[in-house]
Formats: sequence, C-alpha cells, structure tokens
Amino acid sequence: MNRAQLFEQIKKKNSYLCVGLDTDIEKIPKHLRSSADPVFEFNKHIIDATHEFCVAYKPNIAFYEALGPRGWESLQKTLDYIPKECFTIADAKRGDIGNTSSLYAKAFFQHMDFDSITVAPYMGEDSVKPFLEFSGKWVILLIHTSNSGSIDVQQLETRDGRFVYEEVIFASQRWATSDQMMYVVGATKADKIGTIRALAPDHFFLVPGVGAQGGNLDAVSKAGMNAQCGLLVNSSRAIIYASNDEYFAEAARKEAQAVQHEMSIYLQRSLG
Amino acid sequence: MNRAQLFEQIKKKNSYLCVGLDTDIEKIPKHLRSSADPVFEFNKHIIDATHEFCVAYKPNIAFYEALGPRGWESLQKTLDYIPKECFTIADAKRGDIGNTSSLYAKAFFQHMDFDSITVAPYMGEDSVKPFLEFSGKWVILLIHTSNSGSIDVQQLETRDGRFVYEEVIFASQRWATSDQMMYVVGATKADKIGTIRALAPDHFFLVPGVGAQGGNLDAVSKAGMNAQCGLLVNSSRAIIYASNDEYFAEAARKEAQAVQHEMSIYLQRSLG
Repeated sequence: MNRAQLFEQIKKKNSYLCVGLDTDIEKIPKHLRSSADPVFEFNKHIIDATHEFCVAYKPNIAFYEALGPRGWESLQKTLDYIPKECFTIADAKRGDIGNTSSLYAKAFFQHMDFDSITVAPYMGEDSVKPFLEFSGKWVILLIHTSNSGSIDVQQLETRDGRFVYEEVIFASQRWATSDQMMYVVGATKADKIGTIRALAPDHFFLVPGVGAQGGNLDAVSKAGMNAQCGLLVNSSRAIIYASNDEYFAEAARKEAQAVQHEMSIYLQRSLG
Repeated sequence: MNRAQLFEQIKKKNSYLCVGLDTDIEKIPKHLRSSADPVFEFNKHIIDATHEFCVAYKPNIAFYEALGPRGWESLQKTLDYIPKECFTIADAKRGDIGNTSSLYAKAFFQHMDFDSITVAPYMGEDSVKPFLEFSGKWVILLIHTSNSGSIDVQQLETRDGRFVYEEVIFASQRWATSDQMMYVVGATKADKIGTIRALAPDHFFLVPGVGAQGGNLDAVSKAGMNAQCGLLVNSSRAIIYASNDEYFAEAARKEAQAVQHEMSIYLQRSLG
C-alpha cells in the first residue's frame, strides 16, 4: 500500500487508528481457549469488530514467536484475515548485517505479505537498506521510544549538539524518502513529537503509547499531524482487552469507535 | 552454562571457536535437499563433524524465520541436537519495551532452551533487563559491529567525548555483571577490540567476522584475550560451506580443526 492509498483510507474512515494485535494467550477470554487456534480465533473476532474504525493492524511479533511454530501459523492466518484495505505492520524491531536483514525482509515481505516492518537502527544503513529493496513495502524505523531506557542511547547528546535520535533521522533521510519510510515516535511527551515533526515534515509517524502507555491523543495529534495526516496512532491493550468476557469483541468495537470518533474531530480540525 | 563452565570447556577443547549455523537452504548440498528436513539434516552433519573443535554454536535466527513455521521446527531440532557441553547462542538481535522483551526471552530461554541471546541496545535498559531475569542465561549485547553502517549510530561521538558504543558499555555495566552479559564486538579492526577490552576487562566478547567477513584471528586474539580467554570467535560460512558436495561435513571438520589448531596456539601464548 502506498502513501496516497493510505491517506485515502484515512480520509474514508476518518481514522488514523492502528490496532495493536498484542495477543497474549493468557489474557484472552476463557471461552476461546479451548478452540483449535485460540490466538487466531481471538484476532478474528477483534478484526471483525474493529476494521471499520481503524486503518492499520500491528501484530507484535514477540507474542507469536513466544508460542513457537504454532504461533507463526496463528500470525499467518491473522495476516491473511485482515481486510486488504488495512495497512499491516510487523512489529518485529529487526536489524542485522545485510545478508541477514535480507532474510528477515524475505520472512516478513515474501513468506508473509506485510506492508511494513519496524526496524532498529543501531547497526546503521546497511542493516536497514535490505528492507527497502522490496517494492511497495515500508520500513518503520525506531527513532524515539517512550520507555525509560530511551535515555541510554536515543537521548545521548552528540558532539554536534544533537541527540542520537536526531542523527538517526538525518541519516535515514539519505536512505529512503517518506514514500518508503516511517518513524516510530513514542507518545508520552507530545512536545517531543512536535520537535521530530519539524525535522521530518513529510514522514508518517507510527505512535505507540496512546492508551495503556499513557499518551494523550489530542496533544499528539496537534503536535504531529501534517497535511496528509502523517500519523498512525496505535492502541493495543485498551482496545483488545477492553473486556475479557464473552462480549470482548463488542467492547473492543466500542473502544475503537470511541477513538475513531475522537480522531475524526482532530482530522477535521487539521485538514478541514 | 555459567562462566566457569564455559572456561572449562575452552581449556578442555583448546578452542574458543563458535560455529555459526547460518544455514541457507539455497546453499546446502543438493543431495540433502530432498530429505524431510534439509536444514536440520545439514546442521546435524555439521554438528557431528565440528563439535570436537568448537565450544559454541550460534544459529542466526533470520535463516530459520525466513522459512516460516517449519524453519522454527528445524531450529528446535537443531538446538536439541547440539551436545550439552556446547554453549548455545540465539543470534536474534531482539530488543523491545519490557513486556515484549519478556516474551522474546520466554521464546528463546523457555520455549527453546538457548544459553544466550544477542540483544540490540537502542531502546535501553528496560528493553534489556527482561532477558536478565532468567537464571543461568546470558545477554550478548550489540556493542560495536563490523559492518559499514556502524558509523551511523555506534560511532557517533557524544558531548562527553566518547563514542555511543562506549556509552553502551558503561550503561550496560550497571545492568548486569560479566557473569550474565557478553558483548558483540566486530573483528575487522583488531585495535578496536583492544580499546573495548580496556573498558570491559572481564566480559566475554562474541566476535563475528573472522572468516568470510575478513577479520584476523591472530590480531583479534592478541588484542582481546583476557585471563579466562574472554573470547568466542565465530565463523559461519568458511566452515559450514567449506564444500557443497557430498563431502561437505568432512570439509567443515577440516576447516574447524584448522581454526581450533590455530586457537590452541593463541591460548597457549596467553594462558600458558
């Protein structure tokens, strides 16, 4: 899915919501646990209930990898079930030397058919480029995350008076355009999003941390939105675990709808 | 496997060789490709041929992940087949926020039973700590890699006149001792290994890049060895693809034996 198609979906659905499929087998409703593939069964219901209100789905790969081979089968079935108009993100945070990154790219872009993958930048350009060789696919590069450990590397100040995460923005803009690269920007400090928006006016930002991690949707939208929206705001637990009884899908639907409604106001405010 | 046990194995085998099981289904001998599980079949022969001469095995997870669910089955079977006296490394370069890193740790330390996992430090302390909560398991933290992209983040200079990779060493020494953490240090520049050894006198270094990536074993060993050896030097392609005909295992054995012989000289030189 290209940038124009994504923006079309955002306008059509009046939403820039990404639903995080962080499906933990310990947390899904009890009545699903006896089914043949409880993780897929849960995801299927969540997708049915929320796809009207979101433009993207983001399975966090760790949740599937932790289940061994059957987890990968649940992931593949989930990906196949997501409606084609939704943007799909493999939240995998991969990154290795060139020939290895090529294999990760093959895993997520060919073996599976994700639209995008999150990539960690510690190993630099040649660890990221192999993911960019797949036409029509996106790299979503870790820039600034909202966890406490972001001070250890991302927020180190360099000799040139910049933060490391700013250097990653500058470097990565030489590797790909905003038609093939997005940035992960944590949401707990909205002013940080404004600073990063000034450095990357055109890029889409994937913003985790609204909901359970405590970001503020209004402030994030004000600081981060650009002329093509430029935001995918993720919510995982607040939606998929809105309830854990037999009405979990309906509860997820209501939660997603409420977020979408709020987003429609911010889209109207910014795009008119 | 703890530090003392690892050092015992190094002395017993007169070797600090790690064999990288970067098993590419496109590169294994043709006569194996028709077997039920060609990747496992290949690994089994390689392990049989090399285990006398090495102290560790390091499957690069990308090679297995690229094959989908059956790749994970080949990986599990390979891990189960590795003799118990060998140290096992999941070369996965994972790292995510706390609850996600916990799941990756569960995948590699519980679901599978690896001794260690490689971890990327870009997200900082709380992305690394969950891996340290497993008793008897090791984190092998990316510090300085030998690829060209290492300049983009690792070699940025900070305001305090250090490189980012040095800051990672200092920070990580607050997270764990050298009994639970090793460092990935690329081998193409042996002087860099000496610099890093001065900052981390006790830590084991996992050194990729000897062999196909062009490192020099003599120089690396001189610069990096400490009183407990402190090195695991990895070779992948030079050993496992020493030949790709029906005598591939014998060729791998000869190659591993040659490296082990060289290592025995450097161990004698340093440890007496």
